[in-house]
Parts: sequence; C-alpha cells; structure tokens
Amino acid sequence: MFFASDNAGPVHPQVMNRMMQDNTGHAMPYGNDPVMDEVRQAIRRTFEAPEAEVFLVATGTAANALALACYTQPFDTVFCSNVAHIHEDECNAPEFYAGGAKLTLVPGGDKMTPKALHATIAGEEVRGVHGPQRGPVSITQVTERGEVYTLDELRALTAVAREFDLPVHLDGARFANAINTLDCTPAEMTWKSGVDILSFGGTKNGCMGVEAVVLFDPDKAWEFELRRKRGAHLFSKHRYLSSQMAAYLDGDLWMETAAAANAHAQRLAAGLRDKGAEFLHQPDANMIFAAFPRAAHKRLHAAGAKYYIWEGTLEGDDPDEMIAARLVCDWSISDAQIDQFLSYL
Amino acid sequence: MFFASDNAGPVHPQVMNRMMQDNTGHAMPYGNDPVMDEVRQAIRRTFEAPEAEVFLVATGTAANALALACYTQPFDTVFCSNVAHIHEDECNAPEFYAGGAKLTLVPGGDKMTPKALHATIAGEEVRGVHGPQRGPVSITQVTERGEVYTLDELRALTAVAREFDLPVHLDGARFANAINTLDCTPAEMTWKSGVDILSFGGTKNGCMGVEAVVLFDPDKAWEFELRRKRGAHLFSKHRYLSSQMAAYLDGDLWMETAAAANAHAQRLAAGLRDKGAEFLHQPDANMIFAAFPRAAHKRLHAAGAKYYIWEGTLEGDDPDEMIAARLVCDWSISDAQIDQFLSYL
Amino acid sequence: MFFASDNAGPVHPQVMNRMMQDNTGHAMPYGNDPVMDEVRQAIRRTFEAPEAEVFLVATGTAANALALACYTQPFDTVFCSNVAHIHEDECNAPEFYAGGAKLTLVPGGDKMTPKALHATIAGEEVRGVHGPQRGPVSITQVTERGEVYTLDELRALTAVAREFDLPVHLDGARFANAINTLDCTPAEMTWKSGVDILSFGGTKNGCMGVEAVVLFDPDKAWEFELRRKRGAHLFSKHRYLSSQMAAYLDGDLWMETAAAANAHAQRLAAGLRDKGAEFLHQPDANMIFAAFPRAAHKRLHAAGAKYYIWEGTLEGDDPDEMIAARLVCDWSISDAQIDQFLSYL
Amino acid sequence: MFFASDNAGPVHPQVMNRMMQDNTGHAMPYGNDPVMDEVRQAIRRTFEAPEAEVFLVATGTAANALALACYTQPFDTVFCSNVAHIHEDECNAPEFYAGGAKLTLVPGGDKMTPKALHATIAGEEVRGVHGPQRGPVSITQVTERGEVYTLDELRALTAVAREFDLPVHLDGARFANAINTLDCTPAEMTWKSGVDILSFGGTKNGCMGVEAVVLFDPDKAWEFELRRKRGAHLFSKHRYLSSQMAAYLDGDLWMETAAAANAHAQRLAAGLRDKGAEFLHQPDANMIFAAFPRAAHKRLHAAGAKYYIWEGTLEGDDPDEMIAARLVCDWSISDAQIDQFLSYL
Repeated sequence: MFFASDNAGPVHPQVMNRMMQDNTGHAMPYGNDPVMDEVRQAIRRTFEAPEAEVFLVATGTAANALALACYTQPFDTVFCSNVAHIHEDECNAPEFYAGGAKLTLVPGGDKMTPKALHATIAGEEVRGVHGPQRGPVSITQVTERGEVYTLDELRALTAVAREFDLPVHLDGARFANAINTLDCTPAEMTWKSGVDILSFGGTKNGCMGVEAVVLFDPDKAWEFELRRKRGAHLFSKHRYLSSQMAAYLDGDLWMETAAAANAHAQRLAAGLRDKGAEFLHQPDANMIFAAFPRAAHKRLHAAGAKYYIWEGTLEGDDPDEMIAARLVCDWSISDAQIDQFLSYL
Repeated sequence: MFFASDNAGPVHPQVMNRMMQDNTGHAMPYGNDPVMDEVRQAIRRTFEAPEAEVFLVATGTAANALALACYTQPFDTVFCSNVAHIHEDECNAPEFYAGGAKLTLVPGGDKMTPKALHATIAGEEVRGVHGPQRGPVSITQVTERGEVYTLDELRALTAVAREFDLPVHLDGARFANAINTLDCTPAEMTWKSGVDILSFGGTKNGCMGVEAVVLFDPDKAWEFELRRKRGAHLFSKHRYLSSQMAAYLDGDLWMETAAAANAHAQRLAAGLRDKGAEFLHQPDANMIFAAFPRAAHKRLHAAGAKYYIWEGTLEGDDPDEMIAARLVCDWSISDAQIDQFLSYL
Repeated sequence: MFFASDNAGPVHPQVMNRMMQDNTGHAMPYGNDPVMDEVRQAIRRTFEAPEAEVFLVATGTAANALALACYTQPFDTVFCSNVAHIHEDECNAPEFYAGGAKLTLVPGGDKMTPKALHATIAGEEVRGVHGPQRGPVSITQVTERGEVYTLDELRALTAVAREFDLPVHLDGARFANAINTLDCTPAEMTWKSGVDILSFGGTKNGCMGVEAVVLFDPDKAWEFELRRKRGAHLFSKHRYLSSQMAAYLDGDLWMETAAAANAHAQRLAAGLRDKGAEFLHQPDANMIFAAFPRAAHKRLHAAGAKYYIWEGTLEGDDPDEMIAARLVCDWSISDAQIDQFLSYL
Repeated sequence: MFFASDNAGPVHPQVMNRMMQDNTGHAMPYGNDPVMDEVRQAIRRTFEAPEAEVFLVATGTAANALALACYTQPFDTVFCSNVAHIHEDECNAPEFYAGGAKLTLVPGGDKMTPKALHATIAGEEVRGVHGPQRGPVSITQVTERGEVYTLDELRALTAVAREFDLPVHLDGARFANAINTLDCTPAEMTWKSGVDILSFGGTKNGCMGVEAVVLFDPDKAWEFELRRKRGAHLFSKHRYLSSQMAAYLDGDLWMETAAAANAHAQRLAAGLRDKGAEFLHQPDANMIFAAFPRAAHKRLHAAGAKYYIWEGTLEGDDPDEMIAARLVCDWSISDAQIDQFLSYL
C-alpha cells in the first residue's frame, strides 16, 4: 500500500529490458549514441514537431531549471503558481541556474487562472531598471495538486504570456498523465497551445531517471547543451538515458503506464468518495488530496500504508476529525493494494 | 577496437543484475532507500572511515563541482594542474557551483610537483582583498595523462596544502585504477595521506552512471546535501544509484574491473613499445599517450579502430611521421581486440 | 516643489565642505585613510558598540545586498515584507549577491506583524533538502510606506527571528528619520532590539552617496570586506566616502537633517489633513501616502510640482475623484515650498 | 613623496568645483539628471561616436566587470594578459558578474603579443561542450606594467579577436595617459581600432570616483543598465557622478591631467636613469618599474617616501643589491617632490 509518491515505484520491465539489451559493446558517449537518434526522431514524431530539439537529463529539477535558464536573464523574474514545484521543491535550483533570477508567485494555490496570471504580470510593472524584468511563465501540467488544465485553460494562460511577449515553459513531470486525462495529442498540449519549451517526464511514469527537454524553438539548442554540461548534467554513458526514453516512447508505453496510474487513482478516488472522504482538489489524474477520519488514518498506518498527511495531524483524540492525505498512484500499484487500502477506511 | 574512452563501455553484468534485482516494489526516494545504507557502510568499511559521510551523484563533474563547492567561497581560487579535468573538461561547472570562484593553474602539464604547487600557492599572494583568497587544492589520481602519483608524491602535495592550511580534494574518477597500480589501501590513498574529500568514480569502471562523494569531514555533510539538491543532482529513484554502487563495492568488483582495465593497458603498452612507439607519459594505469607512424594510424582507422589523435594530424604525406594517440582501456576490452590493434602497427 | 524622493536633493553644505577640506594631498586608498578611523570610532560611539565593525559603500542597494549575503547561503531564503525595497526595487541584487538565494514575502503590504512573520517562517517548513532553508529576516525602518516600527514592534519581530534562530538585518536607508520619530538611541533601535547587521543610510539624508554597514557581530567583517571588493564596491579614493560619513556624524548632523525632513513632512501632512486628504499609511516620518482630488493634482502638475502618483491616474474626467500620491520630504525642502504646494490643494 | 598609486591623490579643483556648482536644488535621480545628457554628448563628441551609449559607475572594477558581463556567457572564457587587473586585482569580480565564467590567461607578463593571444585562443580549442566557449578579449591600455600599446599593436590584437569573431573590451583605467603617450584620437584608440566596449577611467586621473563605460555597440545598452542596477552600481544621486565626468571632459581637463602625470613620470624616469636605475618595463606613461640599490630605498623610506617594493626586499645586508620599486605619478605630484625623491638615490 504505497501511495507516498509516484517517484518510488519500480522501473517498468520494458524499460529495464531495453537497458539490458543496449548494454553491449561500446557506444559513443555524451549523447552521440545511436539510440539518442532514435529518441530524437520518436519525440519529433510524437509531438509532430520535426524541427524540435531534444535533450535528456536524469532529474525533473534539472529539466525545469535548465529549460527555464535558457529563457531567463539573471535580472528577470519567472511567473509560476504559488505552489509550483519549481518554487517549493527545488531548493532554489531555478534561481541557481538562472544566475540569481527571481520567481514571482501567482496566487491561487494550484491552478493559475488567466486573470490572476495577468494581474501578477501586470503588477510586476516594469519600472525601468528598478524591479526585475518580466521573464517566462512556467505552468505545471498535471498541477502539483493533481488537477489538469483543459486545453482551453492552458491556451488562456499562454495567451496572457503572449500578450506580454513572454515565453512559456511547461513542467510536464506528469505530462503523460495529463495526456491521458485530456485525451488530446502531445502537440495540442504543447506548441499548438503556445508552449515554447517542455520538461517531458519519464521518471515518475515507469522510467529509472530520465526526462526529455523538448525545445520547440531550436535556436536555444546550443545554449541548452552548454548549460546542461556546465550544470554537470551531461551523462558520459548517455546511452542508458537514451534507452530508457526509447523504451518509454516505444509502442506508446508512456501512455499505457499513465493510463494505468490514472485508472488506479480513479478506482481509489471512487472508493474514497463512497466512504465519505472529502476532496481538497479535483483528482484529475493520478494524485488525490482527500480528507477522511483520523481513525481510518490510524488503521491504515498500523497496517503499513505509506502516504503523506497533508493537513492536520494524526495526534489528536477525536477519531472522527477529518485529516487530509496526499495519495499518489503510480503505474505499478495493484488493484488489490487499492482495495486493501479502501478496506481500512 | 574501442580505445576512445573508458566512459563508453558497457555496464558490468554484476552491476546490471543488481539493478534488476533491486527493481521490485516501492522504495523510499531521495537517498532514503535501504540499499543506500548498505552503500554507506561498505564505503566506510572500505575506507576504514567509520565517520565518513557518503553521497551519490550520477556524473563525475557533479561529484567534483559539488565537492569543491563545499570548500570554496566565491572569492577563493582552487589550485589544480593546468590540465586538470575540472579546468579543461567541465565547461565552468566548478566555477558555477562555487559561485564564481576562480581556478589557479599549476604549470607542468600533468602531475603537479610539490615545488610547482608551492610556488603557485605562494605566488597567489594574499594581498588583502585585492586578489582571490586561497582555496582548496584539487589533485587528480589517476591523472588526466594516465600517470599515478605514488603515496609519497601525494603526501608531498597534501603537505604543501597543509602548510597553507588549505583543504584537499581528490578527483578519483579513476580511483580504482590508481589503487590497482599502487597496491595500497583506499585509506592510505585518501585520508591517511591528507585528503579531505574524494570523488570516487564508478562510471568509467563498470557502472552505468554513479560516483560517490566521500566526506572524511562529516561536518560538511548537510551543506553537501543542500548543494546536491540545489544543483538538481538528487535522484528521486535513488535506489538505482545505490544499487550500482552496492554491486560495484560488493566482493570488490571495483578492484577487479580496474585490474582488468590496467592489465589491458599494460598489454597494449607492451605491444606498442615492442613496435617502437614513443610514450608521451608513463602509462601507469589504463591510459596510454603514445606516438607511432602516420601509416599505422591510417591502417587502424581504416580497420575501424576508435581513439583520439592527441598531437599531430592524420592528414599529411609522410607515412613515417610520428603522430600521438590517446588510448584508453576499459575493463571490457578483450585481449583479442588489443592484439588485433597491435597487428595493424 | 520637489517631493518625488529624498534621493534627489542636494548634499548638505557641511558634508560638501568636509569633502573639500579633506581634498588635500595623498591618502592611502581602499579604506585605509585616516578619516575612516574617525568614522569607525564615531559609529561605535553612536551605537554604544565598541566591537562593531563598520564599512562604507556608496549605494543603499549595495549595503543591503552585501549585508544579507554575509548571512545567506545560496540555498536559503530571506524573509521580508512583500513591499520591501530589497524585493521590489533592487533588480534582483540581493539574489545576485547571495548566489541565487530566494526571498520569501511576508504578506501585509507594509509593516510586518509578528504573527504574519511567524506564519511565513513556519510555513516555509524545512522539508529536508526540498525547499530553501530559512535564512535571515530583513526589516525596513522607516518602512517603504513611511511608517515606523515602535521599539516594541521591532522587538516582537526580532523575537520571532530568534525563535527560529535566524539573524536579523535592518534596512535603515531612512534610519535617521526613524530615530527622530521614536526619539530613542541608535543602540536601542539596533543591537539592543536584536538586530545583527544594519544598513545605515546617509545618501537620502544629506550625503552625496554613502551608506555604512554596521556589523554588530564582528566575526563577519572579513567576509564582508571580500564580498564588497568582489562586488566592485570598494572605493580606491575611499576618503571621500569617509569624509561624507564623518561630516554626517559630526555634531549629530544626521539627526538634525532627519529632524528637518520629518518636520517638513509633518507640516505637509497637517496641511493635507486640513484640506481633507485621505492617508493610505500613517505618515510617521518623512514620507506621505495621501489621496486628494484629481483637480488638485492637475493644478499641482501645472505648477511644476514633482511627485509620484501612487494609485489611480490623472487621466479621467471626474475632478473630485481621489487620486493617491507619494510625497517625500528631504531635509532641504523649504517651508515656502510646502506652503506653496498646499495652496494648490 | 607619494608614488604608491595614482588612486590616492586629491580630486582636481575643477572637478570639485563643478560638484559644488551642481549641488543646488533637486535633480532627477538614477541617471536622469540633465548633467548626464551633457556627459553623454561630450563622450560622443570626444569619441566621434554619435551612436555610442555611455554609463557611469564609481569604480574601475565595476566598469570592467559590467562591461565584460555584457559580452560573456557563463559558459565562456575571457582572454586577458596573465597580469591583467581583471585577473589579479578584482577578487573574482569579473567571474561574479559573468555568472561564473572563466578567465584564460595569455602568457607574457604584460603586453600581450598577437602571437601569444592567437595561440591562447586557438589552444582553448572548442571541443564541443566540454571546455568553456571562447568569449571576449580584454586589453589593458596603459598596461598594468606601465607600457602603452601602439595603435599598430592594438590593431594586431583586435585583428586576432576578429579572426575568432570575439568582441574586444578595453580596460582604460589609464586611458588618458595612453592618449597622451600616443598622441592619437580617442576614436583611433577605440572603435577605429576594433574596440567594442571601453572602461574610460576618471578616478585615477583627477576625479573622485567615476568611470564611464562606453558602448560602441548601443544594442547592449539596456542589458548594461540592468546589470548595473542589479550590481548595485546605479547611483540615486547620480548627478555627482555626472558632474565629475562633465568637469573631467570640459576643456579636455582629462588630457591636461594625464599630460601632467606622464610628464612627472618622465622627469622621474630620466632622473632614475641618470642615477643608474634599471628598468623592468618601458615607462611609457605614468608608471615606472625600476630597480636601484637597497641603500637608496632605505634612505627614501627613512625620508617618508611612499611606494611599493616590487621585487626583492629591503631586509638584507648588501646595500648595493638592486631592489625593484613600482613608482606611480599622478597629476598632482610636484616637481619638487620628484626632485626630492631623486636626491635620495
């Protein structure tokens, strides 16, 4: 019963097998391996973007920080949600990679609204040299609270960015889960909706540790490569990043694992709903933020369930007090585990 | 016939198998996996350093840059050989991670001598606030030109550092190969010889992408962890770094693979010597810098041999002109490949 | 009728004369001039802090950014008001000098309350390495909106910082004006109230361009000196910074000019109040944020008055609509100018 | 007898008087003062560069570091002499402002030769992403050892830069002295000779603390302004920087003071030559590096002469041993002081 995060599950066998299969003889290092060519072509095909440039790194924070750095001058500020991963969970990595730039937070608590984004950008008035200059807008899809922007919502945000002539980064650590939710094409959720650069996650969805940064504007490619090397994120034995991503894309494994994760979360959400849980956010993909009684939490903990308490505390006398949990399903969770979890509620 | 680098070979089967074996169920992310405990204990045992702290990253540049950053203020300078990897091959990563610090180069071209190191440090006189302040000394063992400092040589260098009260970093991307050459203990080559922080390489010697940073001064541990996260080098699915390192240490696989690589290089060096090649540097470990006639190079290239031309160029008329090559043997090269290579000379 | 800022007035004659007087012969550069000794002693006496270290820079942003950098690791976050000058008006200088650290904003809009500060620091929970670490608290006195913390309010804020074991920086660009308002000693408003490092402003209050950074913890002195030089803020002809500060302190000129500025603002505020203006903030020192009818603004602009429109716009039809202005009095404004201004209301 | 540096002399009366004269009423801050318009026009006229952009800062290090930062990406390296001020005397400020870029040193010890510069740039081969990328070339005129590049020498260096398509920065802390030596126009020594950006020194040559950065490529102007503000180098009471520079340019005062300083140095050099001193470098401008007997040094020190011992030490028994001194003449030294100095030799 492991619902703590989707970054804790095993590597999908098809990914592991591909890594084994490519583990033979010598291969040119530093991204010059032939499997990387395959990955590049697969990404371009998947995104209907024949000009796009693609680079691999091993962590989501690296993907985000490097992608943003290509669009952020050190005297700029990046606009993002006030619960954005780049703000809350990357220990100043975006600021580091962008040379000391700032992050300006859009209030709201999860999904940014076009209105709030507009007000925030407008509020960061450009008063000559005194304040930071307006930099890129970063949007997380699936959001940090498990919601998914519709294409219309996404386009409304990128329209605001365009109004101010600002580039758009999409943090797609859970890109696959969002695609599954929206049932749209990768192109529709990215460049066709105004996204300039994408962190395309693999790690949380069945890979070992690989994220693709997709540059729909290839002019930034060389700068990205230099920043990746300078950040110490260029792998010598790069083929093992390539292999993961190749297997992930092959036969649309990435959509399959995301579909599984989302389905698990829907099963869990349905069960929670039946048992009277209250939802803090709409569980659009594979993350659930839900409150249920303290007594149920205690039974679950005693039974070894792993997940984070989100609001409130297990210490307290009232067994009926509603305590919120964050529950994340990865592709590998079994229905049996979910049903076992629900049985304790 | 792949002699271009030891970062291009396959992963050792024992490493790959361990990764497969640990690929089951969920594991706590971010270094809290149980395999990391095993790694930590194994490193402490191996280095006879029960207090040492150990952290894993995926690239050698990350290991070096993060290790140095813990000992370098932004107004300091790091002392290193003028052919050090941290100077020549890391695209300003050490400067980046140390917040804009400088590198001061010790002349010599490969092995630093105590005299040259002393003169360089003394020459970087501390003139109040005007110049940079003296920061750590970084030594590479095996050197970038394939030589190995004896323990006496190493201690003479660290004695110079100590005279100026400077900490010592050892870039041990090929640490295992040096241990094989010197036939000494890891403790002797590190803290017993005055090393404060070590980049302990795994990638070049049979792993997929893992380096351990060993902090003999545990006081820097928390800062290291924060710098690793801020640098985007903390893996969520950390267990796969742990697995690699665990397999690498298990049964001293690391010494075995290094012994193989060194033996291959000795076989190749002996053959080259027999054929009249001239050596630019003493081939102490698994790297050879040797010159032989242009005609032989041409035959080798025609036969598909992969290696770097180090000095001179293949374009030229004189078939007898001596052209230098860099030849690196990894653990996986076969004797047959070596003999095939030699047959073209 | 110049009320745009107190950074636009002339240099006080006593300051200018002292600069003239010290402009003779050669003086050791880089802060080794004898006048600096005089300044150091004067600051120590003024602050009853015989151990304090004192350094001069030429801009307030330099004072703030360098002071904070001595207490902020690159993986930290600085706590400050959401309208703090360091956040809004320094173009990422604090982030730059602190190596990419973050600023976390305390909501409220001007004066921080202990409750809001506590909630903000507590909310920046230390979740291991994931978020930034808690860094210093920066308080502005006089605030950016012209209010002055009482000593009790100040101590309540530093008590919160102390509870979390965080150092405290005071941005005293208008320190003198606050001393005038509170009628307390410099020691009471700084180290006796828990302040560790102070930006002591001279520029806005009659100097040409000089700010003293006062380190009540002398252990940071050498680091400050190195950071000042690295930031290119160490003057070779330092004596002219010293002369300004010496004249400023001599005979308590600084208190005299601040008293004048505050008195001018009180005269102006009283007049505004009489004419029915509405105050956005309590005009505790030499800055006034007040709204009065558009028609009055138009008359003032036509007459050449200089000040910033703070809220609303002069373009509009309704002559009675209340439009807010920011009005700042420096020491050099004459009563006649103030009365002339009031006559247009 | 003060020959320690030209940064220790007094402010020229014409500069001081202009500052007094402009010290009246209010002036718009942050470079929007009317005197800055005068300065801008005067610089454009002086340099025959009607499109050039001009900005003022207070220190030479700020001028250099900000100028270079506009042309240096963090993954680049700057080429400069191995005794360049930016390398030896700025405590890593150029690295700081350029976000962690590197400096690559051209050997030679003072004047760079085109051959050495070419070899150094070529030697910093661009090996993909591994090493730093080639950045700007920085030339110091007058050099740090008091020599002056002829226009031919300067053009030969900029031709090398152009061959590699690299921009050129001129560190003109003593620009005026070089103009005096070469008797050429400012345009000839800058943009007509291939210089893209200039640090035009005022401080050492009669000002209080002001340097102009002249951008012959105005496209970098806005970036420069933002970097200046972010570096905390934008003065609020900017008019006092403007006044200094205005007075400095007015009636070619800058050429007059430089002529005086150079003439003093020629008088001193001639005297030294007569007394048998040995010159380490050609004293082309206002700095002399010369060796004379220890006994003479002792007499001078006893008499209170101030200058730096450059090589050797006064402690020693042999009164005839030649010990080298650095002797710098500023505009304010009197002939009497020089003759007095010479009388002790």
